[in-house]
Amino acid sequence: MSPMLAHLPRTNALTAHVRRMATVHGSAVKHKSVPDTSPAIVMLNMGGPSTVAETHDFLKNLFMDGDLIPLPFQRVLAPLIAKRRTPRIEKQYEEIGGGSPILRYTEYQGAGMCALLDELHPETAPHKAYVAFRYANPLTQETARRMKADNVKRAIAFTQYPQYSCSTTGSSLNELFRRGRAGEMGDVEWSVIDRWGTHPGFVEAVAQNVEAALQQFQPSDRSDVVLLFSAHSLPMSVVNRGDPYVLEVSASVNAVMDRLGHSNPYRLVWQSQVGPSAWMGMQTGEAIKGLARLGKKQVILVPIAFTSDHIETLYELDLEYMREGRELGMDIQRAESLNESPVFIRALSDIAAQHLRDYSAGKSGPMSVQMGLRCPGCKNAICGQQKHWFARAGQS
Amino acid sequence: MSPMLAHLPRTNALTAHVRRMATVHGSAVKHKSVPDTSPAIVMLNMGGPSTVAETHDFLKNLFMDGDLIPLPFQRVLAPLIAKRRTPRIEKQYEEIGGGSPILRYTEYQGAGMCALLDELHPETAPHKAYVAFRYANPLTQETARRMKADNVKRAIAFTQYPQYSCSTTGSSLNELFRRGRAGEMGDVEWSVIDRWGTHPGFVEAVAQNVEAALQQFQPSDRSDVVLLFSAHSLPMSVVNRGDPYVLEVSASVNAVMDRLGHSNPYRLVWQSQVGPSAWMGMQTGEAIKGLARLGKKQVILVPIAFTSDHIETLYELDLEYMREGRELGMDIQRAESLNESPVFIRALSDIAAQHLRDYSAGKSGPMSVQMGLRCPGCKNAICGQQKHWFARAGQS
Repeated sequence: MSPMLAHLPRTNALTAHVRRMATVHGSAVKHKSVPDTSPAIVMLNMGGPSTVAETHDFLKNLFMDGDLIPLPFQRVLAPLIAKRRTPRIEKQYEEIGGGSPILRYTEYQGAGMCALLDELHPETAPHKAYVAFRYANPLTQETARRMKADNVKRAIAFTQYPQYSCSTTGSSLNELFRRGRAGEMGDVEWSVIDRWGTHPGFVEAVAQNVEAALQQFQPSDRSDVVLLFSAHSLPMSVVNRGDPYVLEVSASVNAVMDRLGHSNPYRLVWQSQVGPSAWMGMQTGEAIKGLARLGKKQVILVPIAFTSDHIETLYELDLEYMREGRELGMDIQRAESLNESPVFIRALSDIAAQHLRDYSAGKSGPMSVQMGLRCPGCKNAICGQQKHWFARAGQS
Repeated sequence: MSPMLAHLPRTNALTAHVRRMATVHGSAVKHKSVPDTSPAIVMLNMGGPSTVAETHDFLKNLFMDGDLIPLPFQRVLAPLIAKRRTPRIEKQYEEIGGGSPILRYTEYQGAGMCALLDELHPETAPHKAYVAFRYANPLTQETARRMKADNVKRAIAFTQYPQYSCSTTGSSLNELFRRGRAGEMGDVEWSVIDRWGTHPGFVEAVAQNVEAALQQFQPSDRSDVVLLFSAHSLPMSVVNRGDPYVLEVSASVNAVMDRLGHSNPYRLVWQSQVGPSAWMGMQTGEAIKGLARLGKKQVILVPIAFTSDHIETLYELDLEYMREGRELGMDIQRAESLNESPVFIRALSDIAAQHLRDYSAGKSGPMSVQMGLRCPGCKNAICGQQKHWFARAGQS
């Protein structure tokens, strides 16, 4: 794209967007008459091994991610840690049916979203979804190759993490940036949907799954059932550098409770801590034991920070914590993950359609205002470069 | 009140309320024709020394609060710690003008709230506000004496902490329970307004103060200004037993940002940590330094968890952090505290009026559904007894 962009000062996203439009199309006014290029919707997520055999590579990719887990001598240590952990994690994937369903669900959700999006935003139809996983197939580099082969010129990086963390969406965007800057996708105009944890459609989909789970209890007991919203925890070292995840997950839970009319008592708790360092709490497992001790034995576990089943729901919640709870005499249920929820798929298409409308109208830039702010404690230079690159719609 | 209540099974708040109404007035239907008793609105807060000379007693009361800071040999240690800290804290109160303005603001807010409430809910007029501070005058025990002297028969415990924590509202309710159970207020029918951190009026009042602070910046700079919402931190030991405060403060911030149309980048950060143990972060002071390092030098500090100025805004934010920020070359402003905000006072009266309407209509019980759930990690037996007592409207 235009070399004129190279000397643009670093500015806020909206201004940059308007200036880019003016540069590309001659004037912002003229822009309306230029048909939009049909966009690729790139669904970002961590991914999981679709088969048990892919477990080792998944773990290796995970421990190689310096944005997620900065290790000394990462290239040496990461494969060693991955190798040591593989047998235990392979066993867990075996127990949940031989692999993670995340690719299957993401493809299902993506196809459904695009079909709806063709109706909701026909100006840019047909829409095509791509999956870009951070640690499992299809990896970002493979997706980049496919996008280039398909001659994609316009793309939306659509995080499938409802709430933003530098460890999740941030890491995916950093990877996309590295591949994009290296030219692996070709010349693509990018914009980003970076968070949507309080979108009414997402909230509605979660609330409906909670209501369905409440039906498992006797009508006379329902209002006493405790809702335990559970999200993947974060090391306090990440929280303490200003990561926005805890706030955004909290806002999601609050929105779901508003939607439910605060019908039930609830807590937000945190799962999947590993290693000896401090993580955000209260821990899900401890909360279950604590509720049992207090005599609050009717509980629904509600996954709130992931859009489909994965090892943390199917193994950790269903096989570990629910077993523990039942051993403590509890009646413990789990709200279904969003998986094939039509309400959720409609929400995804609404979010994408709104983004396309706002972007075309110049109401929003290639990324949100909030995405432009690095964490106050951030020391990762890539984060700064990545934001700078997306603020210019991925134009180097 | 009726001895029939004594054998009521422990049940959910709504049912208890309906049964109580049926018992007291013969039938729930008949209740409408019985005029309500004019209620006392008891405004709960931690308080602060109105004069420098009261600093020592304030600190002693604070360190004596086993619900807030459980200490071994509390009755011995608390006075020693208070005595040691007094000179330094006295100096801080001297620097902010010779005392805390919290009583003055609370009385102002209470008078304004009651005047509006007389219009909004004339059925129970006239309304009278009482202040019950946890650590400063007027202490709960003094307020109890006044209520008894005034022959109060109906009272609303209205926390002035927008977001619930066991360390703040919880401690105040425990104290109220202890005094109430001992008969210090006489025979009072209690209900509780326990949290209101996303009430639209509160959110509006905070948002207006943020907008006013934004006016301090050049129009061309405004959209780049970083909003640093700052709340009093909490020890991770409290967070990790399932305290709801972090979630509720997060929900407040999210609601304010929604109201502001996400016009600015923001973070929620945490202030006033003391001692060597781990507290919720990111710390406000660290965030300011971090933003300066990243070149984000235009910042507004927004107090989000307190309803008036106090030592944490007037000393810690205004004198410590803002001075540090300016030394780092930052243009740093503070959004005003709610203090005499008419929008906020209107919000207080709306919250109280809604509570009175819902309670009279039997739509809500003496306390919220959420208040009924102890933290999963709670080991404080008083919390359980307190909730049980308020669920029965303070009828032993």
